[in-house]
Amino acid sequence: MPNSKVLPLLESEGVAPCCPPLTERPFTAEEAETAARMFKALGDPVRLRLFSAVASHEGGEACVCDISDVGVSQPTVSHHLKKLKDAGLLTSERRGTWVYYRVEPSVLAAMGRLLVLAPVEAA
Amino acid sequence: MPNSKVLPLLESEGVAPCCPPLTERPFTAEEAETAARMFKALGDPVRLRLFSAVASHEGGEACVCDISDVGVSQPTVSHHLKKLKDAGLLTSERRGTWVYYRVEPSVLAAMGRLLVLAPVEAA
Repeated sequence: MPNSKVLPLLESEGVAPCCPPLTERPFTAEEAETAARMFKALGDPVRLRLFSAVASHEGGEACVCDISDVGVSQPTVSHHLKKLKDAGLLTSERRGTWVYYRVEPSVLAAMGRLLVLAPVEAA
Repeated sequence: MPNSKVLPLLESEGVAPCCPPLTERPFTAEEAETAARMFKALGDPVRLRLFSAVASHEGGEACVCDISDVGVSQPTVSHHLKKLKDAGLLTSERRGTWVYYRVEPSVLAAMGRLLVLAPVEAA
């Protein structure tokens, strides 16, 4: 077992990258649980659109008012944003009337790391 | 039918990266459908373990006999491998008794690209 603290990927303010690159060695059951949760959160088209809308919004954050243009109702938008938050992919902060969502860059970086191709000898 | 069947991210032998980095601009509905399919395929702990087992196996390929150590039955392993194949993440080839699975590196690269953090400063 790795020297992991895992579950979820976020630890308070910091990040505990749960897993090595997918190509490095077989994942343990615990690593797979943690990483699968993140992938699953992005495995829905509406959630993925919302996530990219937040991630690409000016300043790296957006309120629901900015990103509701995905063809579903506002309650559905809120539902999906909550799921992204529960998976540790977004953080949120209420300011006045609106809740602002922000992508957790360290989590995105950790996910990117999973998908790094291991250095392989060119064939 | 054929192993080389064109899958969402694959165009003939090459790759057609469907989507920009998640942080670049909001995904269109079509982009989100394509990318979510891949994320969803990895959003299950058993599939993720199988995927990393194949990806990290010597030579970048493995047969079911190499990777069935994930605590589920052989039919379940086969079921999950098929899902990964359907999502375009694995290819397979029968050689003699066994079917060998291989990670599609271009798809992995395309997924990694989605998760690249966009540089903040404009070019």
